[in-house]
Amino acid sequence: MTSNPTACLLIIGNEVLSGRTRDANLQYLATRLGEIGIPLREARVIPDVPETIIDTVNECRARFTHVFTTGGIGPTHDDITSECVARAFGVPWEVHEETRALMAADYARRDPPVEFNAARLRMATLPRGAVPIRCAETSAPGFSMGNVHVMAGVPRIMRSMFEALAPGLEGGRPILSRTVHAHYVYEGQIADGLSAIQAKYPALDLGSYPYYRGKGGGVALVAKGTDGAAVEQAAAECFALLAQFGEAQQGEPVPE
Amino acid sequence: MTSNPTACLLIIGNEVLSGRTRDANLQYLATRLGEIGIPLREARVIPDVPETIIDTVNECRARFTHVFTTGGIGPTHDDITSECVARAFGVPWEVHEETRALMAADYARRDPPVEFNAARLRMATLPRGAVPIRCAETSAPGFSMGNVHVMAGVPRIMRSMFEALAPGLEGGRPILSRTVHAHYVYEGQIADGLSAIQAKYPALDLGSYPYYRGKGGGVALVAKGTDGAAVEQAAAECFALLAQFGEAQQGEPVPE
Repeated sequence: MTSNPTACLLIIGNEVLSGRTRDANLQYLATRLGEIGIPLREARVIPDVPETIIDTVNECRARFTHVFTTGGIGPTHDDITSECVARAFGVPWEVHEETRALMAADYARRDPPVEFNAARLRMATLPRGAVPIRCAETSAPGFSMGNVHVMAGVPRIMRSMFEALAPGLEGGRPILSRTVHAHYVYEGQIADGLSAIQAKYPALDLGSYPYYRGKGGGVALVAKGTDGAAVEQAAAECFALLAQFGEAQQGEPVPE
Repeated sequence: MTSNPTACLLIIGNEVLSGRTRDANLQYLATRLGEIGIPLREARVIPDVPETIIDTVNECRARFTHVFTTGGIGPTHDDITSECVARAFGVPWEVHEETRALMAADYARRDPPVEFNAARLRMATLPRGAVPIRCAETSAPGFSMGNVHVMAGVPRIMRSMFEALAPGLEGGRPILSRTVHAHYVYEGQIADGLSAIQAKYPALDLGSYPYYRGKGGGVALVAKGTDGAAVEQAAAECFALLAQFGEAQQGEPVPE
């Protein structure tokens, strides 16, 4: 898994840090990035503070193959992601003419037409050298600037932008995963056996996740990695381990 | 708001970064920390990698008044938060006798009794100098080590640990919030007016959040800060701004 490219997600927005909004993008991106072999290695939620955004972008773009950002590319005063990415890269933030023309045409087509005012022109203003990410949901684009991919925070638009972007990313080996579980079996019982399996498959990630369901509960064991045969073998050993203590089952536990 | 203490949350666990598990703790902690005047200023999701945990704990405990962690304090091989916090502070990681006795008594009381094996003893092993966080949900504790507060990842247990811990934290002025919204009003229309209100109340955070509902949509404006009178005044001005373009309403939009 270590030879795969890596990803970091920056969730930009005071509304997530205040508890007003529950982030809905991390899980989607984590899943999709695993599928294309660019596993998510870190995510950060940061506020709408220019210095924080600039410093975090610069730190993370040096550490990870790809940095994805969500949020802060709308028309209002708290939408400062685009400008901050320009400052992080030390390039001008300027109107992107092709984008301006596309947005103007889109706004003129609406009924009634939408005024292309100064606030909306901010959404056509990009760091110099940025490549727009266009999607069907809106004429206001995201963009890639080097290895930093800037997307909207609204989940529907973010997904559309990511799916427009994904085919152009050089992926690695997909992260494969197999889950087994057992009700009325507990982590404290299987910990030693699980450590032994992990030691046998150092290239895999074995995870143990307790779950709770009504009065009872149990444990789910997840084997994850890029080597499909090893994932299957490790999962079979996890299944056998669980079967020593209870009724082992394939797959994730179904919530009640 | 700047004179308040600050908080950072570290969500520790491969399962969140792989997309298997959707974090359910950030929003709860963000809301509760705002209420007690210790606003959450950053959150990070990091993997079960010792160096990453140690470095992140040390970076964040120097930058924020309080660091809260969730996840990685169970009995299995991937539960390494406690040991890593000990290494971050440069202290031994050792059996905490009072905790061992409490857990032994709890396990002996169960029917059938639970075996207090080596894996479960890990949960009674704490950094030297740590203060246990005990809660009603489990006899395996969280702990505070300096300004780092280590809690379980399971939401029910995390909440119980946080509520046990909260009365002992020196809070600041609560973060107050007032929301107004209008259907069929869009960010691009009110951006300039909102900037003017923000400029008038520099100590407040004014946020603008588009929402989508069926065919239409609208915008919610949120005024936030520690000065209740200023929050009310700014929210009233936001209401008047929205009323110029549509039917302004108090409170959050109700999802359809």
